[in-house]
Amino acid sequence: MSHVDIAAVKQYLLSLQDHICAELEVCDGQARFVEDDWGRGRSRVMTDGALIEKGGVNFSHVQGDTMPASATAHRPELAGRRYQAMGVSLVIHPLNPYLPTSHANVRFFVAEKDGEEPVWWFGGGYDLTPYYGFEEDCRHWHQTAFEACAPFGDEVYPRYKQWCDEYFYLKHRDEARGVGGLFFDDLNEGGFERSFGFMQAVGDSYCKAYVPILQRRREMPWGERERQFQLYRRGRYVEFNLVFDRGTLFGLQSGGRTESILMSLPPLVRWEYNWQPEDNSPEQALYRDFLPPRDWLA
Amino acid sequence: MSHVDIAAVKQYLLSLQDHICAELEVCDGQARFVEDDWGRGRSRVMTDGALIEKGGVNFSHVQGDTMPASATAHRPELAGRRYQAMGVSLVIHPLNPYLPTSHANVRFFVAEKDGEEPVWWFGGGYDLTPYYGFEEDCRHWHQTAFEACAPFGDEVYPRYKQWCDEYFYLKHRDEARGVGGLFFDDLNEGGFERSFGFMQAVGDSYCKAYVPILQRRREMPWGERERQFQLYRRGRYVEFNLVFDRGTLFGLQSGGRTESILMSLPPLVRWEYNWQPEDNSPEQALYRDFLPPRDWLA
Repeated sequence: MSHVDIAAVKQYLLSLQDHICAELEVCDGQARFVEDDWGRGRSRVMTDGALIEKGGVNFSHVQGDTMPASATAHRPELAGRRYQAMGVSLVIHPLNPYLPTSHANVRFFVAEKDGEEPVWWFGGGYDLTPYYGFEEDCRHWHQTAFEACAPFGDEVYPRYKQWCDEYFYLKHRDEARGVGGLFFDDLNEGGFERSFGFMQAVGDSYCKAYVPILQRRREMPWGERERQFQLYRRGRYVEFNLVFDRGTLFGLQSGGRTESILMSLPPLVRWEYNWQPEDNSPEQALYRDFLPPRDWLA
Repeated sequence: MSHVDIAAVKQYLLSLQDHICAELEVCDGQARFVEDDWGRGRSRVMTDGALIEKGGVNFSHVQGDTMPASATAHRPELAGRRYQAMGVSLVIHPLNPYLPTSHANVRFFVAEKDGEEPVWWFGGGYDLTPYYGFEEDCRHWHQTAFEACAPFGDEVYPRYKQWCDEYFYLKHRDEARGVGGLFFDDLNEGGFERSFGFMQAVGDSYCKAYVPILQRRREMPWGERERQFQLYRRGRYVEFNLVFDRGTLFGLQSGGRTESILMSLPPLVRWEYNWQPEDNSPEQALYRDFLPPRDWLA
């Protein structure tokens, strides 16, 4: 088996954060990320950009001498081990409602014990949340995800695409959060090098998936109607993150840094009782044609 | 023991909903509640009032042939019983940031089985969430709560005041949701009549606690600074309701009507990374002088 190189993962994650922030700054052309180093991570936040109303790209690295009880409930073999968890997590909320929100995350977990093999796994993925749907954008997003997965086997993209559809799902709304992408967890198949390689392929492809969509839609004019719908739909993002997202809930419950965890929440959000889209409107098309899980490569 | 009169509770709750809506409409003077009858309840929502930006006053009555497994996990004696749960729940979000948000709830639960005594309890309370603190308002709110409790014993107000402080607490922020009020649950001490009477005393005193505060502050001029702080603080309300509130989570997880459950969410909300109030500002005073639990009757 291959050697578990924790330092290499950390170095990759830090450089991924640098790389993504740099690309998004160039794309935005106006605002810069502001860094906040808080000891167990560095948060980078951009606000009031030309394209990006609020964007957060967070690196975190937490460790402990013993696994928390909650984390070993169904993995008793990890009890008493020291552990490290590290990852990059980001959410970008554009200003123009024709630009979709995107989320990406890559993460690594390792539990160690002297004289024994470390237990480790990778997780991550990315998903897209449009307010107004464009088939071309969804196909590009999923095609990029597909290409990142392809070197790792034909079954990889469909499997993680489906997992993403299942994970980013608002049960109380019977509604997907967006048009999906990739989601994987507990990955250690094929050894460390291969799993780490896959996590890098996902991380490296995020900007290739997202930035061309920002560029393609950035000049589209929008008005109050589109803005109001965007603010309304952002409510679903909040509902998902606070009610369902495991990472958010685990972070809040385990004493993580609240401001870094909730960096993902949109800058401005609205709720309206019992709102329904008009028949045959572009807003209705989002619900009808984009949110129900689809094969975007067909 | 006294007879459990389910019909009387239902009649009280429906008349309470009527009464509160009527009082708030008079107070607002501009907007009306719009009713939505959805079979297992009636939701009433007011939007864009002179005082009330969004207010929801919901009556619901759900029943089932057998208790859900989740509800009998630590009350095995209820397994297999048919049950009814009914209540009035409301949240009022004023437009003027000098007017506090308020929440009230009264509820009744009964589990029945042929040939056996019904198992039942009452719950409820109300709590106040100011954006800008006024000692006079907090004292009035708590004094009204105190007077509602007084006929039921000297220990009642302090006990339920403390329970409220403990319940409406955002652990991840180490911060109270507001200045509290009353919270009680599992109440069946002293028999049905007495418990029902206490629930009525709480329900009936809500408008006496809240309306005078709306009247006292309604003419206070406010601007963009106060509005932005209000929208920011409303984020805490969303965080509490979606992450911690048992009623919200139980409703969403048990297939309740999402739009009625989430009626409590504010109309417009904002999140800002790592925001801090300025020293010696009225915003800082909220955190320093009002949110930490206090004895408001001292």
